[in-house]
Amino acid sequence: MSTKLRLDKNESPYGLPDHLLESAKKALASIEANRYPDPTYSSLRESIGNYVGVYKENIVPGNGGDEILWLAFAAYVSPGDRVLTLNPSFSQYEHMCKVFKAERLAVPMTLKNDSIEVDEDEFLRSLRSQNPSLVLLDSPNNPTGVALTDLFIHKVLDSARCPVLIDEAYGEFSSHTFLEDQGMDDLPESTMILKTLSKAWGIAGLRVGYCVTSQPTARKLNGLRSPFNVNLFSQAIALELLKDRSWMDKRVKAIVETRERLFSRIKKGLKRWQVFPGQGNFLLVKLPDEQRDLLGYLRENRIEIKGFDLPWEGHWARITVGTDEEMEKLIDAVEKV
Amino acid sequence: MSTKLRLDKNESPYGLPDHLLESAKKALASIEANRYPDPTYSSLRESIGNYVGVYKENIVPGNGGDEILWLAFAAYVSPGDRVLTLNPSFSQYEHMCKVFKAERLAVPMTLKNDSIEVDEDEFLRSLRSQNPSLVLLDSPNNPTGVALTDLFIHKVLDSARCPVLIDEAYGEFSSHTFLEDQGMDDLPESTMILKTLSKAWGIAGLRVGYCVTSQPTARKLNGLRSPFNVNLFSQAIALELLKDRSWMDKRVKAIVETRERLFSRIKKGLKRWQVFPGQGNFLLVKLPDEQRDLLGYLRENRIEIKGFDLPWEGHWARITVGTDEEMEKLIDAVEKV
Repeated sequence: MSTKLRLDKNESPYGLPDHLLESAKKALASIEANRYPDPTYSSLRESIGNYVGVYKENIVPGNGGDEILWLAFAAYVSPGDRVLTLNPSFSQYEHMCKVFKAERLAVPMTLKNDSIEVDEDEFLRSLRSQNPSLVLLDSPNNPTGVALTDLFIHKVLDSARCPVLIDEAYGEFSSHTFLEDQGMDDLPESTMILKTLSKAWGIAGLRVGYCVTSQPTARKLNGLRSPFNVNLFSQAIALELLKDRSWMDKRVKAIVETRERLFSRIKKGLKRWQVFPGQGNFLLVKLPDEQRDLLGYLRENRIEIKGFDLPWEGHWARITVGTDEEMEKLIDAVEKV
Repeated sequence: MSTKLRLDKNESPYGLPDHLLESAKKALASIEANRYPDPTYSSLRESIGNYVGVYKENIVPGNGGDEILWLAFAAYVSPGDRVLTLNPSFSQYEHMCKVFKAERLAVPMTLKNDSIEVDEDEFLRSLRSQNPSLVLLDSPNNPTGVALTDLFIHKVLDSARCPVLIDEAYGEFSSHTFLEDQGMDDLPESTMILKTLSKAWGIAGLRVGYCVTSQPTARKLNGLRSPFNVNLFSQAIALELLKDRSWMDKRVKAIVETRERLFSRIKKGLKRWQVFPGQGNFLLVKLPDEQRDLLGYLRENRIEIKGFDLPWEGHWARITVGTDEEMEKLIDAVEKV
């Protein structure tokens, strides 16, 4: 039976590099699994800080980016509060609103002919009128792939009377990110950038995420998290990975090039699909009515892509960008429908 | 420089067994670090269920026992609510009350001549009069080592109009546990038993804890947790470890025997200390006034034990039970004071 093609979770198609597997084996022999990690995560935060270009005092480590969301909610959201997001956006935002008994306000993005856009005016109006306790903005947005402009994010920060979390989990795949463009200076103290090693760095299974924020907010969130939230082994692997970003940069470049080839290929060859430009490691497509069962058909052929109900009519799917070979397999399967 | 003697965190003195290190290396080569874990944690929950003697549907996996506390608070505690605990008890209870903006009500235990006891009547009175949203009872209690009687826990469950979490993180070291004596049948649906692989199983650094509870409550808590809360690697190691409990049983037996030898040794040889019988992998001691600087002195000699401010006067310290050799080193150092 052929290997399952998993294009449904925005994972990296690349396993750990060989040189890292060797380091990992050494790490394994040297970590003392019976001992708790350093609760300050000093080395890990310093290493992440070096990568991002901030001090370790600006970093909060998380058990995946998911835990950064938990910490932001625990810090700023009480039952009955409102949390402002885009619709659509990362599914965990809705989940976290349920966990913390908050109301999710989701401003619909706008479907134009060949693009999806943020209704910036409407978002800013909601921000001013609805008095949310927390704003969550994913950029690139999941699942549309839309990257927010720095100008819009600045407007949000200027208007917000509450903390704003900008989720740049997919930032490395994007032509621009707010964090890279702007840095952490001159932002409101409670501005948080969520990042992760799950996507570009390719260790989704090891659960290492982080928040880049002001030092006072980092102290606050570090004070909330469980003292031992990232395990020793994942920490050791992360430290090895972060020593050399060239491996990651190459993989990201390959994925971005494949994304663009896939986009053109769909535009030219799969004309029944409508595909939208995206800045993540995934592309959103609208399927024609007659392909409403496509996901089931693909699953039978051991290919997983993710279906979505979006605020617009029609059948929608998100395709994780893997290797060129994986994309060819997908296209071949779709063409046989 | 000699190795630091870490007797301050109730860790196991034993590293991963050799046979497991080999399996771990194989696991490392076979896990796909770029892929997310199975969000249902079906294998892990089944394996834990087999160990505990319940179905996997009764198990909630956690990123350490700490995350089980987060889930219990997220499920049952709102800002301003009261949480009923013992004083003293595990320090994370107080931390979690701060995180969730709850009021911690802590019923003082009673210091008798040579023992520390739960004031059961007072606890039950508080339970009835204070209307808490959650009860947290650690048994064995940390740092006193006192194991609660099954009868008392039953009385608490009978009187409580809220969920009760019984923290048996140290259960394997105790002469009895509520979970083993009672099982999960015939308990109120929201009764939760917190357990961990950090202590007896010796993988504190890998962060695997769990909750044993009714199936409806397990569904509730599993529905709250992040879908990927335990990382792939720790899961693989936990699965290997849990295949054979004999390694753990032998280590626990050794630690319990060492604990009893240490107790006698202190009673007979360190008469300036007052030592209390304990059921965990640690012993609580009261230091004489003239040893108020003992912890600093020991630290200079590369030995860490943990000091406590307790509801009773005097200087208190908790000593993690390691190997006999480690205990001898500690005693030698103390005798030189």
